[in-house]
Amino acid sequence: MLTISNRGNLMPESPIRKLVPYAEKAKQKGVKVYYLNIGQPDIKTPEIALNAIKNNNLKVVEYSHSAGNIGYRKKLAKYYQNIDINIDENDILITTGGSEAITFAFLTCLNPGEEVIIPEPFYANYNGFAVSAGVVVKPITSSIETGFALPKIEEFEKLITPKTKGIVICNPNNPTGYLYSENELIELSKIVKKYNLYLFSDEVYREFVYDGAKHFSAMYLKDIEQNVILMDSVSKRYSECGVRIGAMISKNKEVISTALKFAQARLSPPSYGQIVAEASLDTPPEYFTEVYNEYIERRNFMVEKLREIPGVVCPLPKGAFYAVVKLPIDDSDKFAKWLLEDFQYNNQTVMVAPATGFYSTNGLGKNEVRIAYVLKKEDLANAVECLKFALEQYPGRTL
Amino acid sequence: MLTISNRGNLMPESPIRKLVPYAEKAKQKGVKVYYLNIGQPDIKTPEIALNAIKNNNLKVVEYSHSAGNIGYRKKLAKYYQNIDINIDENDILITTGGSEAITFAFLTCLNPGEEVIIPEPFYANYNGFAVSAGVVVKPITSSIETGFALPKIEEFEKLITPKTKGIVICNPNNPTGYLYSENELIELSKIVKKYNLYLFSDEVYREFVYDGAKHFSAMYLKDIEQNVILMDSVSKRYSECGVRIGAMISKNKEVISTALKFAQARLSPPSYGQIVAEASLDTPPEYFTEVYNEYIERRNFMVEKLREIPGVVCPLPKGAFYAVVKLPIDDSDKFAKWLLEDFQYNNQTVMVAPATGFYSTNGLGKNEVRIAYVLKKEDLANAVECLKFALEQYPGRTL
Repeated sequence: MLTISNRGNLMPESPIRKLVPYAEKAKQKGVKVYYLNIGQPDIKTPEIALNAIKNNNLKVVEYSHSAGNIGYRKKLAKYYQNIDINIDENDILITTGGSEAITFAFLTCLNPGEEVIIPEPFYANYNGFAVSAGVVVKPITSSIETGFALPKIEEFEKLITPKTKGIVICNPNNPTGYLYSENELIELSKIVKKYNLYLFSDEVYREFVYDGAKHFSAMYLKDIEQNVILMDSVSKRYSECGVRIGAMISKNKEVISTALKFAQARLSPPSYGQIVAEASLDTPPEYFTEVYNEYIERRNFMVEKLREIPGVVCPLPKGAFYAVVKLPIDDSDKFAKWLLEDFQYNNQTVMVAPATGFYSTNGLGKNEVRIAYVLKKEDLANAVECLKFALEQYPGRTL
Repeated sequence: MLTISNRGNLMPESPIRKLVPYAEKAKQKGVKVYYLNIGQPDIKTPEIALNAIKNNNLKVVEYSHSAGNIGYRKKLAKYYQNIDINIDENDILITTGGSEAITFAFLTCLNPGEEVIIPEPFYANYNGFAVSAGVVVKPITSSIETGFALPKIEEFEKLITPKTKGIVICNPNNPTGYLYSENELIELSKIVKKYNLYLFSDEVYREFVYDGAKHFSAMYLKDIEQNVILMDSVSKRYSECGVRIGAMISKNKEVISTALKFAQARLSPPSYGQIVAEASLDTPPEYFTEVYNEYIERRNFMVEKLREIPGVVCPLPKGAFYAVVKLPIDDSDKFAKWLLEDFQYNNQTVMVAPATGFYSTNGLGKNEVRIAYVLKKEDLANAVECLKFALEQYPGRTL
């Protein structure tokens, strides 16, 4: 019988991308759309990376090593050593984006039907990777009232079953912008140790940490070195999302050697992407200072302006470039669609990501949206002004 | 419990790559190794493609559309229209290599535990993609005696169970070099129609067809348009394996829209790869003539020389750039390892791929190896001479 698979039917549509057709229609009507929905920074990729690709001398674009070019892995190991993550090139598997790192980690560590606990709201595509791998996501709800802090360890413990194999965290967090503290991670490590779980740590926003805070990597945790799998990507760090280069990192040799078998089946990560990513490692520190200053200005501006709108609650994000914001609305999916279909202010509108897509528990996120502050300040100003007027006019407003 | 998943344990090691460490050791001893094991052509990537990447002007390397850049898809649709495959850009999903096309096809069409029938010997990584997706491979054996022709339809019918969801073919075939005829495909389409199966057709070697034969695409088959899923790649066509660009193509709208959800989760295919692949579509015809002449000369030379060796059986490959060759040996895995560890002739040796890895039925392929004629003629001459001497000296020879 010619049918679509159950997982194909279960596969969620991306909450970030499903509204794109409505945005396209708005644009066709001549409306300017500000995209606050997607983590596609407008920051320039480092010159040194762009030059590396323009000056490359490949004559035959060959497969690379399935684990990634050894030269790149060695240099990347130094990047980690510099931030006190003591690994070498054999602990690294270069992947096609952070996406593939998560997929390989799930395929390697979990059987279909086994469970991971993830604090929600969480990066929506974890759902997709879980469905692909047959992994069951058990959400543990964090709340806007605590700024999306890590839920209490007792709450995690309540969710543990014989099928629980791991915990997934994203730190700094997408979508909330929350930065887990050293203490929170140490608490988490105790439960990881107690139940001998995997800790899958997505740290792709490592460099985006504000207000003098320090990022505490899961790789720093003592006693659970064999349990931690780090998932990383160059996409956000160097504003090169399109190169599709990430990494899966672990001190657990069996995990890496098993994941390598999955990597061998798909042959190799992209060659040009590896050239860009390797060159990016020599990005001068001024680049990051400039990016940091830009984001902190955007964040402060956005949070200030949003908080001026009646009924809006916006925690101060401590990392990444997202915020989950509470709005005085009935239904964030309806609202996001209404913004694109039925609203305009000075021929402009805004695209936001309904937070429902970031919660696994049904019904949560209905009065929240994720906002990515990836636009320059003048665009952000227009976007937030649009949002303010929209909230006055939206038929489903609750204020 | 910190354990590796069952699929991780089941995941086969690549038969092509598992011997690489032995080759490395041979090289360290100063032995020159001729790589006949892997389909990595030495042919230059088209100038027009290399120039496109050197002249690109990206300032921010952004995500592309999850289905691939619309411009590339439109131009690619024309490539297919020119070979009478009548599709448009909406029937195409650009993937990260042909590998991802197969993975998306399996995830979209089959539930875990459901079955595909694949004529063996087959491309070994189908096993890997099947294990990842929980799909069960039912092999149907083709034989060197018939030159690896398509097994009789009655043989296929014997394997069909309520769990059978599709048939996978690779045409021209990797590893055998066999080219399925129009008649064979029409026969196959009858069973596809009768049992309403998917037909997954891997046609990445479409351009590598010799002796005036014409490639007959599964997309030409009447009456089963909704059943056919074409899996393609630019890797071999333009000798750009490292760009990691492929495509999944179908007239079945539900299949494409479901696969797009898997594509959205991983965000986008590589941006630089798409630039190269799009530019490659303007490769001048002389490039292909030159490549064709090169391969046909290599093929003829290699087949002639191999057939001169006592006990060697080598069918004439009609397509791709591989041959499965029968050798007078006890065990192809042992032989391939012995070549790298214990043999040398004039300080040279050869790496071949044991055919066991291309069979799913246990015990088959023990006296066969896959040889890729991807080296220039003088290297091929040395490689085949090595093989000749090796077969005289190998302790497990059966002649």
